[in-house]
Amino acid sequence: MARIGIEMGEIGMAEGDLMDMRDSLTAATAREVRLAIRNGAWRGTTHGLASGHVQANLAIVPEAYALDFMRFCQRNPKPCPLLDVTDTGDPEFRQIAPGSDVRTDLSRYSVYRDGALEGEVDDLRDIWRDDLVAFAMGCSLSFDAVLLRNGLDVKHLQRPGGRIAVYTSGIDCVPAGPFAGPMVVSLRPVPRAQVARVAEVTGRYPATHGAPVHIGDPAEIGIADVAQVDWGLPPEIGPEDECMFWGCGVTPQAVAMAAHLPFMITHTTGHMLLTDLTLEDIAV
Amino acid sequence: MARIGIEMGEIGMAEGDLMDMRDSLTAATAREVRLAIRNGAWRGTTHGLASGHVQANLAIVPEAYALDFMRFCQRNPKPCPLLDVTDTGDPEFRQIAPGSDVRTDLSRYSVYRDGALEGEVDDLRDIWRDDLVAFAMGCSLSFDAVLLRNGLDVKHLQRPGGRIAVYTSGIDCVPAGPFAGPMVVSLRPVPRAQVARVAEVTGRYPATHGAPVHIGDPAEIGIADVAQVDWGLPPEIGPEDECMFWGCGVTPQAVAMAAHLPFMITHTTGHMLLTDLTLEDIAV
Repeated sequence: MARIGIEMGEIGMAEGDLMDMRDSLTAATAREVRLAIRNGAWRGTTHGLASGHVQANLAIVPEAYALDFMRFCQRNPKPCPLLDVTDTGDPEFRQIAPGSDVRTDLSRYSVYRDGALEGEVDDLRDIWRDDLVAFAMGCSLSFDAVLLRNGLDVKHLQRPGGRIAVYTSGIDCVPAGPFAGPMVVSLRPVPRAQVARVAEVTGRYPATHGAPVHIGDPAEIGIADVAQVDWGLPPEIGPEDECMFWGCGVTPQAVAMAAHLPFMITHTTGHMLLTDLTLEDIAV
Repeated sequence: MARIGIEMGEIGMAEGDLMDMRDSLTAATAREVRLAIRNGAWRGTTHGLASGHVQANLAIVPEAYALDFMRFCQRNPKPCPLLDVTDTGDPEFRQIAPGSDVRTDLSRYSVYRDGALEGEVDDLRDIWRDDLVAFAMGCSLSFDAVLLRNGLDVKHLQRPGGRIAVYTSGIDCVPAGPFAGPMVVSLRPVPRAQVARVAEVTGRYPATHGAPVHIGDPAEIGIADVAQVDWGLPPEIGPEDECMFWGCGVTPQAVAMAAHLPFMITHTTGHMLLTDLTLEDIAV
C-alpha cells in the first residue's frame, strides 16, 4: 500500500484524504493542478487530473541539442507530437500553459547525465540552467480520454495505474543529428468490432499520437513476443481482440538516452505537465 | 508580353513552346519539375505545375537563427505551416522531396542581407554555406487547388498570374527570439453562399494555411482600406461577396526581414519548391 501511496499523492497523507484530493483535482483547472504541485500539496501522478485537459510529455535539453531535437520531433510527429517549445532559458510554456513554471509544476522529474538516469527529483530550481530548452509533447493520458468520451472500450484503464504494454518496435524513426533509433510503440488490444472506430477517433487527435501506426500482427513491426514488454505491463489479449499500436511518447526519451546527451531532464512516467489546452483545442 | 514571357518560362523561348512546356510540366511529377528547373529547361513560375502536388514556400537561414525561426513557425502554424526542415548544411529536403537539391531546384531565389533584398538569382551553388538550414512551408498555390477540386469559386485565379490581395494585418504573431511582428494575411472575396464550405474544406489542410483567420469586416483585423494592398493586386469584391482572410506565407519573410538577419534566402514569389507530397498526404 505504501507504493500506491507514493504513486497517488503526498507521502504521509491518509489514503482517504488522498482520494478526496484526487477527486478535487480531477475537477480542477489545469492551472489549479499546476499550482497544487508547485506549492507541494500534490506529489502524485496526474492520471485523470484536470479532466478534459491535455497532458504532456516533457523533455528538457541544452540549447546546443535543441535544434536537432526539434527537427527530430518535426520528422516523427506520431511518437513526438510537439505542443510547445520554450524560449531558451525561459521556464514558462507561454503558449499551452501561461503562468506555468516548468521547474516546479510537475510532480516528479527524471534527470539524465551522459544518457544514464541519475535520479528523480520533484523540483528543478537547483539544477535549472539558462541554456535549457523545454519541449512539451502530447501524451497518451489525453489519448485515453478521447477513447473514453467516445464510449470505446479502454480495458487497460482498469489495470494497475492504467498501465499499457510498451515496446521498442522495428520501425525506424527518421533521424536528426544525434537523435536516431527505433520508434517506441504502445499496444492496446481492442475488440475487433471497435478497431475501425478507434482508428477513426484517434486520428482526429494527431497531437496525442493520432491514428495507429500499425494494426494487426505484432511481428510485422518487429515485436516477436508481446509478453516481453520493454515498459509497462504485458497485455491481456482476448480471443476477440486485435492488436493496435500507436507511436509512444517514450520514443524521444529513448533516442535522447541513446544519443548520450550530457544532460537531459524528462517528466517521470505518469507525472505529466498539465496544459491549458482542452481536447477540443487539439482536435482536427 | 515580354513580362508574361519572363514570368512563364525561359527567356527567348517562343510563347507557343512555353505554353506547350507548361502543359507538359502540369502533368509531370514533382521530381520531373525539379529536374527541369535544375537542368535549366524551366525558369518560369510554378503555378499549376505537377498538378495535385504540394508546393512550398522556402526560407533559408543560418543555423544560428534556425532554432528561433523553427520556434516561430511552431508558434504560428497558420502563416508558417512547416513541412520539412533540412539538416544543417544539407541541401536536400529528405522528407518531402527525396533527391532534391534546394540550391538548384527552384527557378528563382531572393537573397537578403541585413534585412534588405540584395537581388534575385536562379542558382544558389555559389552562395551556399555549410551553416544554412532550409525550411519548407505550405503555400497558397496548393490551397487554390483544394478549392478548385471542391468545385468552389476561385475568382482570383482568373486574374493576372492568379495574384491575390495580401496585407499586413493587425494580428500579432507569437514572437520567438528576433522573429516578431504582424501576421501577413491573404484576402479572397468569396460569395456568401460558399463561405461556410470554403472555411470547411480549407480547414482540412492545415499544412497550406488551414482554416481562415478571419471572416468579415477587414477593419476588425486592422485593415482600414482593402484597396491599399501591401503585396499582390487590390481585390475585386462583388456585392455578393464576403471577405475571407488566411495566414500568408509572406509572414516568415516579413518577420525575418524585420529582424535584420545578416543573411537569408527565400523563393521568389511564384517560384515555389515542388514537393513529392500530394494534397491527400497532407489532408486531415
